[in-house]
Amino acid sequence: MEALLRQSKGVCPFLKKTAPSVLRTMSTTAHQSPGGGTISKLQHYARRCPVMNKGLAVQSAKINHARNYSKAATSSGIVKSLLEKKLHTTAEKKANVDTQMYRSEQRTPLAAQAKKTVKKPDVYAGPKPAAPAVPQFDYEAFYKNELDKKHKDKSYRYFNNINRLAKEFPRAHMATKDEQVTVWCSNDYLGMGRNKHVLKTMHETLDMYGAGAGGTRNISGHNQHAMALETTLADLHGKEAALVFSSCYVANDATLATLGSKLPDCVILSDSLNHASMIQGIRHSGAKKMVYKHNDLEDLENKLKTLDPSQPKIIAFESVYSMCGSVAPIEAVCDLADKYGAITFLDEVHAVGMYGPRGAGVAEHLDYDAWANPNRTPESQKGTVMDRIDIITGTLGKAYGCVGGYIAGSAKFVDAIRSLAPGFIFTTSLPPATMAGARTAIEYQARYQGDRRMQQIHTRELKDDLNSRGIPVIPNPSHIVPILVGDAELAKKASDMLLTDYNIYVQSINYPTVPRGEERLRITPTPGHFGELRADLVGALEGVWNRLNLKRIADWEAQGGFVGVGVQHAEPVMPLWTDAQLEHAAETPRVAADNATAAMVMPIAAAAA
Amino acid sequence: MEALLRQSKGVCPFLKKTAPSVLRTMSTTAHQSPGGGTISKLQHYARRCPVMNKGLAVQSAKINHARNYSKAATSSGIVKSLLEKKLHTTAEKKANVDTQMYRSEQRTPLAAQAKKTVKKPDVYAGPKPAAPAVPQFDYEAFYKNELDKKHKDKSYRYFNNINRLAKEFPRAHMATKDEQVTVWCSNDYLGMGRNKHVLKTMHETLDMYGAGAGGTRNISGHNQHAMALETTLADLHGKEAALVFSSCYVANDATLATLGSKLPDCVILSDSLNHASMIQGIRHSGAKKMVYKHNDLEDLENKLKTLDPSQPKIIAFESVYSMCGSVAPIEAVCDLADKYGAITFLDEVHAVGMYGPRGAGVAEHLDYDAWANPNRTPESQKGTVMDRIDIITGTLGKAYGCVGGYIAGSAKFVDAIRSLAPGFIFTTSLPPATMAGARTAIEYQARYQGDRRMQQIHTRELKDDLNSRGIPVIPNPSHIVPILVGDAELAKKASDMLLTDYNIYVQSINYPTVPRGEERLRITPTPGHFGELRADLVGALEGVWNRLNLKRIADWEAQGGFVGVGVQHAEPVMPLWTDAQLEHAAETPRVAADNATAAMVMPIAAAAA
Repeated sequence: MEALLRQSKGVCPFLKKTAPSVLRTMSTTAHQSPGGGTISKLQHYARRCPVMNKGLAVQSAKINHARNYSKAATSSGIVKSLLEKKLHTTAEKKANVDTQMYRSEQRTPLAAQAKKTVKKPDVYAGPKPAAPAVPQFDYEAFYKNELDKKHKDKSYRYFNNINRLAKEFPRAHMATKDEQVTVWCSNDYLGMGRNKHVLKTMHETLDMYGAGAGGTRNISGHNQHAMALETTLADLHGKEAALVFSSCYVANDATLATLGSKLPDCVILSDSLNHASMIQGIRHSGAKKMVYKHNDLEDLENKLKTLDPSQPKIIAFESVYSMCGSVAPIEAVCDLADKYGAITFLDEVHAVGMYGPRGAGVAEHLDYDAWANPNRTPESQKGTVMDRIDIITGTLGKAYGCVGGYIAGSAKFVDAIRSLAPGFIFTTSLPPATMAGARTAIEYQARYQGDRRMQQIHTRELKDDLNSRGIPVIPNPSHIVPILVGDAELAKKASDMLLTDYNIYVQSINYPTVPRGEERLRITPTPGHFGELRADLVGALEGVWNRLNLKRIADWEAQGGFVGVGVQHAEPVMPLWTDAQLEHAAETPRVAADNATAAMVMPIAAAAA
Repeated sequence: MEALLRQSKGVCPFLKKTAPSVLRTMSTTAHQSPGGGTISKLQHYARRCPVMNKGLAVQSAKINHARNYSKAATSSGIVKSLLEKKLHTTAEKKANVDTQMYRSEQRTPLAAQAKKTVKKPDVYAGPKPAAPAVPQFDYEAFYKNELDKKHKDKSYRYFNNINRLAKEFPRAHMATKDEQVTVWCSNDYLGMGRNKHVLKTMHETLDMYGAGAGGTRNISGHNQHAMALETTLADLHGKEAALVFSSCYVANDATLATLGSKLPDCVILSDSLNHASMIQGIRHSGAKKMVYKHNDLEDLENKLKTLDPSQPKIIAFESVYSMCGSVAPIEAVCDLADKYGAITFLDEVHAVGMYGPRGAGVAEHLDYDAWANPNRTPESQKGTVMDRIDIITGTLGKAYGCVGGYIAGSAKFVDAIRSLAPGFIFTTSLPPATMAGARTAIEYQARYQGDRRMQQIHTRELKDDLNSRGIPVIPNPSHIVPILVGDAELAKKASDMLLTDYNIYVQSINYPTVPRGEERLRITPTPGHFGELRADLVGALEGVWNRLNLKRIADWEAQGGFVGVGVQHAEPVMPLWTDAQLEHAAETPRVAADNATAAMVMPIAAAAA
């Protein structure tokens, strides 16, 4: 074995310069592959090596004919043996490359031939090939095995059939119209999905311009609705330009992948709790990624320090982290970006519509007075936190009640992404009615503070109610109410019990959306969740917590605290929306909102005056 | 230099075993990076190598302090020098890794500080960091340079403001309502975007269930509309299950990325003309990719032969290639898949709604009589081409007139993708009204053949008209009418001239949608493009071809033919829709279509009886 290792080291500079202990760790560290699968980190590196990659395929083929690995003579075969025999320390973590287990007895060409009862001549058909004798890969067994794994670890997902009723918000019916429930976990945070102005715009646009855009933006899918929406979004965020995508998943993925792959030697610094769309975008870029601890400025700065000042770098983070409700130190991140020559990429998906005097998000909220000032000018906006952020991404599918995503930033940046990102170029535009409806929602929320104010008040009240009963809300300054359960099976049971026994829908949140062991119920109050509904919910949670004997704050405290719950001497978390801001927001006249559609012709900046 | 090469070969097994001529070719071959950028193929490989990748970053940093590359002492530095000095043969193709050119004079922390006229205290702000002395990367200059490149090679895109009028299909207005044009390039192939049944369903669903889904499929975004749509789609394609995505771009990307990364040692065989979404999905999977020549069964088989029979492999291809209109030899590909133990992944994006007696696509069309038979049974469907395809992907945004995409296949396959693909899991569902509208469109087209029949007749007539005038249609058996121009600037000029002088909108298709040198106008007739509109178009094209002196068929023939145009003694291309099939389709009663909404409660299979 030592001879093998020496031999491998002789041909591979990576193995040569890496310590055995590091190699051992890498061989037992799970790497999330882009499709969501898990291989060992070493396997992951091996696949990227132009020699090893081919070697692995060759070796895998050989396995089927000669099981004695150690006789393999190629250098890649040697390394493969090394990976398999020397470095894997646990059976469970063995990388998933053995094709033996999926050899099929059922799916052979003979079986396929037997299926052909309606076989007919085809202009394209050539001579029928003869069936080979070797067994083929059993794809169905593979799928089944993947699903079995999900069932086994309780991360298999059962979708609930929830039909949210526009006229009875926040109620929904299940399979039949009689089975009504109250929805407490929708991301239609402000109920804009049923807003009369939004629906009116959509009906009119549908009749006038039809159901779909009919093409990509370049080929007949560009129109006045896209232009107006992008102008509105740029104006909302105080940026030169904006660009709309099918979703913010696509916006994040396409933008980070494009920037990271085009910027020479780019490094992307990514918060450890970033959303899957950003993680995918960074992975797809092929750029170097440095993950810094969640909201940890010291860790971020330590990583920035190691990089060359003139090297392009992107700090990618979120304003509101949707599964725990934490909020990023945005201004301090901007300071670090300035100091180290990075650009900032801020995902405001869970914040747009919800924070700031015009609903532009947390970055706007941090300069509440400046942006609320009707006499502000382009000059006076300079230097605000929102102005300092280079790239803001957001969604039209949550607080704005529709669907779609976007980026906003400098004109040249947006034009570059428009010109280069396959995820933007090669896809059908959003329908005209969707774009027009989303724009109405943005304009409405830019003028009317009542919905997000009421949402904040309901959030405060619910958090107070739950805390006073010891039901463990993960503390945070935002509108998210995450309740810790800490077990996948129990979280699902709690959710099912709420639905079945109390007619309340709160989805349980399991892996991969949150880490294993941090399973939770995630509650999102809306302006429509008034006192009586809240009392129902709190009572139901009491019942469920008792029946399932779920841990309360005191139980977590006895264990030393977990994800912020039951942490002794913790500083109190103050809500982002201050009392003074809630008072100011109460003054927005309702009439401003009801005139929102009339205001559609003028930009937000002008209308705010 | 020879010493350098020897030294590099000593440490890198890849350089050691690869011939210098191959290395030279790789260093001058452009590689499309995931974000759409271009680097040399060698650079691409270097980035994947765990040693080289770090080396490149280190080296790049060093460049800023010591421009004399050859003094670099690390092994990666040596290889980098080699890449830069030995192998790059043309200045233009030099890999884009020199950060020097983007050093900023404007964007320094001092400048950023000066911006802060509204600077206010922030709860998160730490002590202000001191400004460093070194220049930082100039991001704006980088964006500008990328855009300049697009302008220079004429691939910069100007979007046309086209507002398609539902009530005056296929007319649209431009910036003002007076400027009306005829749209000849929409992918709303059948005019379903203005179909009264589709619009009625959408209006009703909007009123009842609101504008947006309000969450991911797992968290409050799953509903009866999604379930019904997926049942309808599974039934349409004769599969056990289907899954809806934001778009077919996302469906292709997410499905291939997931399969390719999860299946052990998977190889994906990809047609050379595959759509960007498939190319991205394959890239994102990290799986080994083998590109076979477009529609070339021999090349495909030669590649399959080299692979282990038990190794999982996916053949990814399209039925109708939308930019040239070619059609894949689907049944023969199935034969090869059976022979070599591969699964088939067929993109029917440009074919659903357009081919087959129920509009399920080309795979269905190849067994037209079997699927048109009202007495068919699940057993009689077995062995048809559509049944033999493992995975079908399609769109709701083209012939079905809405937006969104999907996959269809075995229950276990679909459940695995549902459970594993981040692009499905972490994104907001399509709006209920979109899903309901799309379903109505599918049901309508499954019952009524009139639209696709008329579309085919208009296509035939237009192709005949153009051919008889020598206007160079790229020959193909489908509904696409691509007219060869062969020059980016001229293609754009022709498109602009049609729009400005003739009120006809046909987008020019340039790189990266088609290869450079193959620029074209791509025309898509619909059932609404009757004789008078066709006469206008043909007259306008005559005018433009004369005024710009564009090449006609005879000119291409004199050059020996190009992309099928002007090829001497070429076999005539027969349309997929035969005369007999068009006659059969004429018999579909109109009433079947008008009752489509009533049929929404029953699956297509039952209703077809």
